[in-house]
Amino acid sequence: MTSRAPIGVFDSGVGGLTVLKALVAQLPRERFVYLGDTARLPYGTKSPETVVRYALQAAQALADFGVKCLVLACNTASATGLGAVSERIREVPVIGVIEPGAEAACRASRSGHIGVIATEGTVRGGAYQDAIVRRRSDARVSAVPAQLFVALAEEGLCRGPIADSVARHYLEPLFNSGTGSRPDTLVLGCTHFPMLAQSIRAAAGPDVCIVDSAETTAHYVRQTLESQNILARDAEGGLRLLATDAPERFARIGARFLDRPIGPHEVELVDL
Amino acid sequence: MTSRAPIGVFDSGVGGLTVLKALVAQLPRERFVYLGDTARLPYGTKSPETVVRYALQAAQALADFGVKCLVLACNTASATGLGAVSERIREVPVIGVIEPGAEAACRASRSGHIGVIATEGTVRGGAYQDAIVRRRSDARVSAVPAQLFVALAEEGLCRGPIADSVARHYLEPLFNSGTGSRPDTLVLGCTHFPMLAQSIRAAAGPDVCIVDSAETTAHYVRQTLESQNILARDAEGGLRLLATDAPERFARIGARFLDRPIGPHEVELVDL
Repeated sequence: MTSRAPIGVFDSGVGGLTVLKALVAQLPRERFVYLGDTARLPYGTKSPETVVRYALQAAQALADFGVKCLVLACNTASATGLGAVSERIREVPVIGVIEPGAEAACRASRSGHIGVIATEGTVRGGAYQDAIVRRRSDARVSAVPAQLFVALAEEGLCRGPIADSVARHYLEPLFNSGTGSRPDTLVLGCTHFPMLAQSIRAAAGPDVCIVDSAETTAHYVRQTLESQNILARDAEGGLRLLATDAPERFARIGARFLDRPIGPHEVELVDL
Repeated sequence: MTSRAPIGVFDSGVGGLTVLKALVAQLPRERFVYLGDTARLPYGTKSPETVVRYALQAAQALADFGVKCLVLACNTASATGLGAVSERIREVPVIGVIEPGAEAACRASRSGHIGVIATEGTVRGGAYQDAIVRRRSDARVSAVPAQLFVALAEEGLCRGPIADSVARHYLEPLFNSGTGSRPDTLVLGCTHFPMLAQSIRAAAGPDVCIVDSAETTAHYVRQTLESQNILARDAEGGLRLLATDAPERFARIGARFLDRPIGPHEVELVDL
């Protein structure tokens, strides 16, 4: 693998663009190919078998671009499909969002009580719980599905009274139950959730450390490329955006997640 | 077609169960086969080409059960795919939810100003707007996408402060803008929305006539079967539930929509 090969980033839709945004910020000289499987989202409510099948197809499509590294920027795909994808795509490092997030949470937590909010599928699969306890056997993990945050982020309702009341709905039982200990660290275990950081922060309280798995994953990708000596240097960065359906919608909604305008012709339609 | 053949009902997921519930109530002696394409939902954000392709596959799968009537209990599939499905499945009546809803709204409205709330895809496709204006050339249609209602209904947050504030978010610009006329009739143009009827009613106001397209479609199906003399009489009703993914989730969430418990083994997994 050469340093000039692109980095492949895969997500079920636009959510992974928060990971891409963090990657571009930390690795501005890299070229990226982002694939959003918009035709088949959401993955969070699908069965493990289906998610693995979709993730393998998407990973192969990105591998065909000659990528030097593959990022599963989708919590559900990382939780369910990382093993299968790593076995299939053996030539390059395959990085999910779960392990870096779990690692950061274990480092950040003093009490060992860690909260995780994620989609229904990610919580049910238990991947964050497993990854945290593997690192810290004393950890206590409280995982809560917070499915509505996805719809709020896609609808652009990231701030204001609705986002605040939904955040309280999910987080009050975790942080203000009045009984037992409360987590000192909260993992945003879905790529959509950083969009609602302000409301989540308000509901969790100012003393809670919030771990954004987009940031931590980007940091881990940088470390991996450095250790393998395939970091792009003195080159111009670039980005190709691919979607399996509705490129206009991808451009419109994705612009909020990527935090820059996306032209409708900037998104290429691909079939998996 | 004999009167003992089943009625096929198709939706992208569990939303169409509100239509099925209305059908079972109005036609208790019929046998139904319901197919939820849970592997590929939601349709509301997909491109028209993709929706047509999926609707044709699902319609064919139901036709293979020897149905005497096919109901597209999905607004997006009705709006986009009714023509293509009717052309493909010529032997039996194919009924969508748009036309019965538009018909009922045109009858109910005195002023001719009709509000429609639906998914993004249904609003953008303009099917309700077209179907209403075709019947009443004097009508003025205000259509508003209300995508979050889908997530709220699936999450079971159908009543309470969050549902109320989301309903106000979508409906206040329509009913309390302070300028111009307000609709006297509101069409619930998505099968999920009857679940939130209470919050929608509170936000729209007590004087607005709310048209539930599940009820109106069931009524139209009954009329069609009567006119073709294929209504089941003196027989025992029945129901088969099919889903393309995650039957346990279908059973758990669907029970709220169908308003009766669904056993996990009651839902058969099928591939399209």
